[in-house]
Amino acid sequence: MAGDGTGEAGKPGLTRRALLVGVGAAGGAGAMFAAMGALGLAPVEQRTEFTPPQPSDFRLTGRGAAKVVVLGAGVAGLTCAYELGKAGYECTVLEARDRVGGRSLTVRGGDEVPELSGETQRAEYGEDVYFNAGPGRIAQWMVTLDYCRELGVPIEPFINNNASAYVYNTGMKEPVRIRTARADLYGYIAELLAKATDAGALDRRLTEDDKERLVEFLRRFGDIGDKLTYEGSPRRGFAVYPGAKEGTPLGDPAPLADVLASGVGRAVTVDFGYEQAMPMFQPVGGMDAIVTALADAVGADRITTGARVTRIAHVSDGVEVSYRGPEGSGVVRADYCIATLPPHLLAKIPNDFGADVRAALAVPRPVAAGKIGIEYGRRWWELEDRIYGGITETDLDISHIWYPSHGYHGRRGLLVGYYNTEENALAYGRLPHRERLRRALAQGEKIHGEKYRRDVLSAVSVAWERQPYIEGAWVRWPSRGAAFSLLQRPAGRVYFAGDWLSHLIAWKAGAMESARQVVTALHRRVMTEPA
Amino acid sequence: MAGDGTGEAGKPGLTRRALLVGVGAAGGAGAMFAAMGALGLAPVEQRTEFTPPQPSDFRLTGRGAAKVVVLGAGVAGLTCAYELGKAGYECTVLEARDRVGGRSLTVRGGDEVPELSGETQRAEYGEDVYFNAGPGRIAQWMVTLDYCRELGVPIEPFINNNASAYVYNTGMKEPVRIRTARADLYGYIAELLAKATDAGALDRRLTEDDKERLVEFLRRFGDIGDKLTYEGSPRRGFAVYPGAKEGTPLGDPAPLADVLASGVGRAVTVDFGYEQAMPMFQPVGGMDAIVTALADAVGADRITTGARVTRIAHVSDGVEVSYRGPEGSGVVRADYCIATLPPHLLAKIPNDFGADVRAALAVPRPVAAGKIGIEYGRRWWELEDRIYGGITETDLDISHIWYPSHGYHGRRGLLVGYYNTEENALAYGRLPHRERLRRALAQGEKIHGEKYRRDVLSAVSVAWERQPYIEGAWVRWPSRGAAFSLLQRPAGRVYFAGDWLSHLIAWKAGAMESARQVVTALHRRVMTEPA
Repeated sequence: MAGDGTGEAGKPGLTRRALLVGVGAAGGAGAMFAAMGALGLAPVEQRTEFTPPQPSDFRLTGRGAAKVVVLGAGVAGLTCAYELGKAGYECTVLEARDRVGGRSLTVRGGDEVPELSGETQRAEYGEDVYFNAGPGRIAQWMVTLDYCRELGVPIEPFINNNASAYVYNTGMKEPVRIRTARADLYGYIAELLAKATDAGALDRRLTEDDKERLVEFLRRFGDIGDKLTYEGSPRRGFAVYPGAKEGTPLGDPAPLADVLASGVGRAVTVDFGYEQAMPMFQPVGGMDAIVTALADAVGADRITTGARVTRIAHVSDGVEVSYRGPEGSGVVRADYCIATLPPHLLAKIPNDFGADVRAALAVPRPVAAGKIGIEYGRRWWELEDRIYGGITETDLDISHIWYPSHGYHGRRGLLVGYYNTEENALAYGRLPHRERLRRALAQGEKIHGEKYRRDVLSAVSVAWERQPYIEGAWVRWPSRGAAFSLLQRPAGRVYFAGDWLSHLIAWKAGAMESARQVVTALHRRVMTEPA
Repeated sequence: MAGDGTGEAGKPGLTRRALLVGVGAAGGAGAMFAAMGALGLAPVEQRTEFTPPQPSDFRLTGRGAAKVVVLGAGVAGLTCAYELGKAGYECTVLEARDRVGGRSLTVRGGDEVPELSGETQRAEYGEDVYFNAGPGRIAQWMVTLDYCRELGVPIEPFINNNASAYVYNTGMKEPVRIRTARADLYGYIAELLAKATDAGALDRRLTEDDKERLVEFLRRFGDIGDKLTYEGSPRRGFAVYPGAKEGTPLGDPAPLADVLASGVGRAVTVDFGYEQAMPMFQPVGGMDAIVTALADAVGADRITTGARVTRIAHVSDGVEVSYRGPEGSGVVRADYCIATLPPHLLAKIPNDFGADVRAALAVPRPVAAGKIGIEYGRRWWELEDRIYGGITETDLDISHIWYPSHGYHGRRGLLVGYYNTEENALAYGRLPHRERLRRALAQGEKIHGEKYRRDVLSAVSVAWERQPYIEGAWVRWPSRGAAFSLLQRPAGRVYFAGDWLSHLIAWKAGAMESARQVVTALHRRVMTEPA
């Protein structure tokens, strides 16, 4: 990253750098960045610094590469093994499931998806059709993209917000395009504030210059013209779009009170957050491309799937992990262990972490979430609704419909028919798959009409709280207090990593950043041990 | 398209349809759509209906296929020839330039780009690098996408707005990310309106319920919390993004007066229009994929490039077009002519259109626009600035910087270093290419710093007002009055088509819709002539 101040040659740079180190020591990173800004050195943004372990670290210090057993071959575990592998650590990865990736699960035709309830679905998807049952999108600033670049995983845009997608809430006569909802909300807001400004309601806060600039912005923001009145706008879209002839407007916007009562505001603001802002990205061909590339880099010989950990115990100068695997029981002896299992499952495995660590592991609560991937034989959302990717927002129990951000104009396509959490997810999760699909189609029909039921070829649903060895979509910390801090540190020779130990919960980037932190700490410890 | 009312079986459907036809006849399309809405039949949106001419149209009526000479092999001309070709019309297309496509110009390594000034640039771009010198984006609802689907041209998202791109206006200390500008503007607007609402300034307009819902929306819209005060927000982005540790904020937002004075509002609203809303699309591999596919479908044998029209004249039962071509002068005799040249150039060609048509052709004014495509040996905007596609907005004379929406993580990449119009375009256009590049780099450096000058491999610039046989980026109608209407009709056997005769000027969709309208009118005339 640019802007660390070392680019300046000679004394002045050194002086500034010394000053910053002082400020940083006294006031933390925030104060240091503020000082850098004052000095004109601040990068506009940065990610956490990370230097992977290097082969020379061992060579130059005369040390042997340490042995590390990694529990879990999800993103956190694979990232740990990958980064440690760069320096020659001898890593062994134990994974309870029969495939790597954890929640980075991409379902394709022929795949089997078992659930704890006992039902196993078999995906019937056609060729080139896939379902990202877990995470589906990556923000530009996330370290996930660096791994895509480093590992050669091609990426493409994920449409996280589509002006042509719908918002539909219970009580609305019909769904409304997000562009229409946005135009109406912004139009009325602009009108209200411009008129209040004109009427002098903000005179104590704003100068005449401020007021003039504010109203100028509001005219643009709400398309309210010189009358400062919202009377609709081409931004709403058209019944017939302009072409050789003028467009046919949609009709007059609903009155302000109705727009407010319809509750469409959430759909208009979904991409405002720093994790959700457009554009976002996805790996070409399925989210599992990342974990597949990581696993390839780690080496298949270092990863044992179907290996369920039964005990974690410290022994003299090391750790011993017992497991039951496809070929019977086994024990891995290592210098260190990195446990990346979900905390609520890790807590159930016999261990010698100590009472405080065990108590800390019980603090984060698993959260339920579910998705269904419905394959259609016809991309009616493109052909008839002119929706190319993006998300429809609804207060129905399906919460969202995701249209695919790839395979545009193809013959088949797959919608995510629900992506819900908590109570809604639990309700769908309790149903057998066939009933989940039936319910999802009935809800989607309220938005898209009869065609939502036609041309359905197949479907797979995943209830994450029912997935073996995962049992939750992610965790929630009641508060990130002492328990969170405690688990950032090792319990003896056992380190903990995962998105659940980061400030990016439910994002692969959280798992990767947590893994980098643990790799850094573990490597520093190894490097400072007597050679 | 769904919703034409014919999906209903039996009498009720017919009755409703009959009613609509009556309403449509009396009140036009707008009234008809309003009535359809009232009946619950309205599609949410539609494009203009179009039925291409069919081979059976001639077969079943015992007519011979008419002969049509099309002037110009841009999008309008090619679409005319393509659609007429479906029914077996004998089309001849004359194109003055040495390649088809007109303004749909994609420049690749080895291409020569001559300008009227006499300078000819030779593109040195590397393999897989291309520069869309003309149009660059397609909205979801545009007919352009239907042609992509029909012709098998693969598409991919074009990032028209990127929260991580910058806004920079003269007088700002440094560029600001669009996400930061948006968070600050929305935060302050929400605060002002929420407080005015709380203070009773809107009591005459809003009920208590309205006020409560409005404030609830504003809290979400501006991230202003229960205090209804904007104090910054994670939406602004971070100096260091969250990861294993909490994020480091960017610092406090500037005061409202400074945010308003900085003029960042335009950058925040650029994608609000119906033609600009996200997501947008582009053909994979370059915008010329569409005209190439159209030309292939028309047939190379029907298209003569390098053929400059010198005279258009009616003869008995037909039209005669004289041209000077690569192999000397020629004359094409046809039943009809479709002229798709820019109106200001068409007006200069000797013709017998009549004084009113000639006057009408002189009404639309050509607009200047320019672009430069700068190839870099390193995608620093992704590596250092974490900008993946999108557009930086500035009031500098470059107006915009476009980051590429393809080839992510590749080795090389091409930025559009300016895309400007009118005075700014004329100023760059007057310079030799080398000076345009020098000036564009100096301006871009103000936003991106020194790295903007490093790693430049090559560049090509296009001043559209200086492009032979085009001489303008698009046209502006002082008003779409009698002249516009007159040119929608044929002058004898000569029809006019082009984006300049549509309500989508400067969009390929406008050229296509105009072409469809002319094809429809011409075909109807042919079909109603005596067989």
